[in-house]
Amino acid sequence: MQKVKPQLLRGFDQEYLPAEQLQFNHLVDVTRRNFELFGFLPIETPSAERQEILTSKGAADKEIYALRRLADADDDDAATKGALRFDLTVPLARYVAMRERELAFPFRRYQIQRVWRGETPQANKGRFREFYQADIDIIGREKLSYLAEAEIPSVIYSVFKEMAIGEFRIRINNRKVLKGLLEGFEVQQENAASVLRILDKTEKESSDAILRSLASAGVLAKHAEPLYRAISEKRDTEQTLGALAKFGFANETFKGGLEELKNIVTAIRQFGVPDSAFAIDLGVVRGLDYYTGTIYETALVDYPEIGSICSGGRYDDLASYFTSTRLPGVGISIGLTRLFTKLKEANLLKPLPRTPAEVLLTTMDHQYLDKYLRMAAALRAAGINTEVYLETAKLDKQLQYASRKEFRVALIAGESEFASGVVQIKDLAARESRTVPIDNVVAPIRELLKK
Amino acid sequence: MQKVKPQLLRGFDQEYLPAEQLQFNHLVDVTRRNFELFGFLPIETPSAERQEILTSKGAADKEIYALRRLADADDDDAATKGALRFDLTVPLARYVAMRERELAFPFRRYQIQRVWRGETPQANKGRFREFYQADIDIIGREKLSYLAEAEIPSVIYSVFKEMAIGEFRIRINNRKVLKGLLEGFEVQQENAASVLRILDKTEKESSDAILRSLASAGVLAKHAEPLYRAISEKRDTEQTLGALAKFGFANETFKGGLEELKNIVTAIRQFGVPDSAFAIDLGVVRGLDYYTGTIYETALVDYPEIGSICSGGRYDDLASYFTSTRLPGVGISIGLTRLFTKLKEANLLKPLPRTPAEVLLTTMDHQYLDKYLRMAAALRAAGINTEVYLETAKLDKQLQYASRKEFRVALIAGESEFASGVVQIKDLAARESRTVPIDNVVAPIRELLKK
Repeated sequence: MQKVKPQLLRGFDQEYLPAEQLQFNHLVDVTRRNFELFGFLPIETPSAERQEILTSKGAADKEIYALRRLADADDDDAATKGALRFDLTVPLARYVAMRERELAFPFRRYQIQRVWRGETPQANKGRFREFYQADIDIIGREKLSYLAEAEIPSVIYSVFKEMAIGEFRIRINNRKVLKGLLEGFEVQQENAASVLRILDKTEKESSDAILRSLASAGVLAKHAEPLYRAISEKRDTEQTLGALAKFGFANETFKGGLEELKNIVTAIRQFGVPDSAFAIDLGVVRGLDYYTGTIYETALVDYPEIGSICSGGRYDDLASYFTSTRLPGVGISIGLTRLFTKLKEANLLKPLPRTPAEVLLTTMDHQYLDKYLRMAAALRAAGINTEVYLETAKLDKQLQYASRKEFRVALIAGESEFASGVVQIKDLAARESRTVPIDNVVAPIRELLKK
Repeated sequence: MQKVKPQLLRGFDQEYLPAEQLQFNHLVDVTRRNFELFGFLPIETPSAERQEILTSKGAADKEIYALRRLADADDDDAATKGALRFDLTVPLARYVAMRERELAFPFRRYQIQRVWRGETPQANKGRFREFYQADIDIIGREKLSYLAEAEIPSVIYSVFKEMAIGEFRIRINNRKVLKGLLEGFEVQQENAASVLRILDKTEKESSDAILRSLASAGVLAKHAEPLYRAISEKRDTEQTLGALAKFGFANETFKGGLEELKNIVTAIRQFGVPDSAFAIDLGVVRGLDYYTGTIYETALVDYPEIGSICSGGRYDDLASYFTSTRLPGVGISIGLTRLFTKLKEANLLKPLPRTPAEVLLTTMDHQYLDKYLRMAAALRAAGINTEVYLETAKLDKQLQYASRKEFRVALIAGESEFASGVVQIKDLAARESRTVPIDNVVAPIRELLKK
């Protein structure tokens, strides 16, 4: 028979062996558990939405995957009008607008699903065409307290602390402060967007290059360097607040933004986030046309090259394209597939405390099947994941199988063991065995798995 | 601004409110936990595969959704050669063929993901264009013991027992027995497929209609009625085995099939599945060109109209289109979206033992934010999902919000409570309150949530 070569599509290729999949699922579980701990509720949305929904905000068509039927079919609006979502925010906006009357506000939702983007895949940057995002958002109706903005870092902190991926820092800025700074440095409003785009590159480009760009973007010569330094200098939170106070610009945007930022810092501390885990950082310049208040980025302290592992911010109106109710919100997104790829590369994934491959019950003699299965039932009733080796094979081969699949424990019993009412428990990592009564197999195994 | 109407695509419309989503997630969690309990390991595969992979087995093109870019883009093989998977079996075959050397066999995997099919959506039948499937398969290399076929019902039993969806029965048949029966009734091999297709309808069509169809499919007049009765008569497992023994056909397929079926029945009982939960049933006629041994269907005893909620069988070779290694296997699939829809309709979904919306910490006075947040941190550290109400609002409004989101408990404290070092715990369902010391809030809440 002519064979088809088993291979994957470019960018649709983040597929793991079971041991890796377990580690990925562990990241998802930790994320989900922590989101729920803070009272976020789950939703999932369909993979495909109507194209006019996805493009309502003027999203770049060229990155969107639309659907079609392999063979022509009438009356399938998914195939003629549908496309895969490229993020979880647009579907959230559509969801909230559709179900406005059924939801209680503030609406706190989390969503962990795949998204699809027709970007050029770059495995070394952890960029793929299909990947997981994990989002939380808090959506108010007509109003939303700044305390929601202060709560977000405590959720991020809780997630990454439990993931145990090393020291991380949540970098926080405020769009109003940024806007007020530009106003203070006499940047014309029509130049603000391009100036911010330039300032977003202070970590990648030389000061000379930035200063030249600022000049050609219309920043006055006397302001270019102070503005550059305001954004790019490294300071801790108190130093930044101090520097801002020293600028002392009189414009309302700046004064209001600074006041808000100070309140948020106070609240973030009250929310229990230690100063080592967050920093006000004027260099966080992103989401230019979307965010209106606090902006977040999160980086691993020892692995800055990984870039931001969790970003987001405060926005004024989630769903203005779908409803006239004003829905202010704040949210963040973790790119789980990218994070996983990067953690794996940096060797930061911890071995799992527990894997589904826990106990392999070997079967030396199928005439005792009944006894093997009763033992398996007892272990499963105690919540211990147990596989029974059901093929006929020499014990050696069964133990090889156990090692290959990284079982923690193998149980061994044959004629002589059953005659004496015992079974051997083999710790596969420590290569140690002991014999226990067959009726009392659960407790010693549980103890062994706890190690 | 011109608004876009927030709506979903036909068939891509199984989207839930958070409370329903929690119930759906509970079904997924139960399924996953039980699969792991039997030592199945997780994998996930990309949503899109190469078209030649999906169509290798001659799958109907017309149900497959292919991808295209909304705007033209070069060098994107996903958009020119990719399509969404329509089941989890073809991706599994591709996966195993690709990773044959990295996997340990028997390879036991579970996979819970969405699939896409361009069928006509019929909500009343629980048929959608995007839906979840939950699959397990056991794949051997070159060989696979019949005990794997006997183990499958014990996994199904374990899943549905914990789901607590009422009495169910796993109906089991054997393709070899069916083939041997047809041979015994002198059905020509070239007519076997059409005869089985007719016999697959005994529950939907009258005996007259079936008998007429059998005659025109070439079944001899003397055999038509006995064959019809053999397949359609209601019997329990022992009666079926007795009836088969009485037919006593001498052909090897029949004799071998019957022997295998008897061994499997013995083993299913050893695997701990009670006779009330399974039955050998010759009326299970499905997967004509794919399955080669045991076939399974599962129905709810009190809701036969729901149809099969879990089906599968034994096959000879998983991935013959991709590799020349023979990979015999056995597997089943639960249509989770369809099952959920049907359980909801039949009012069979139990209220959840625990929801993420557990404790709402109301905030009567934001000057005590620090105290509220410290209480929230203590509750979360104890694993209790806690939301802090962060908007400024009257207590009444906060309690309305708590009821609407179906919180179990509200915590209430203001100036006088903080002065006396206490907090009110309100059981929202029972509408009862009590006062406890603020430093000892975890234990009483934990107790309350256990109820």
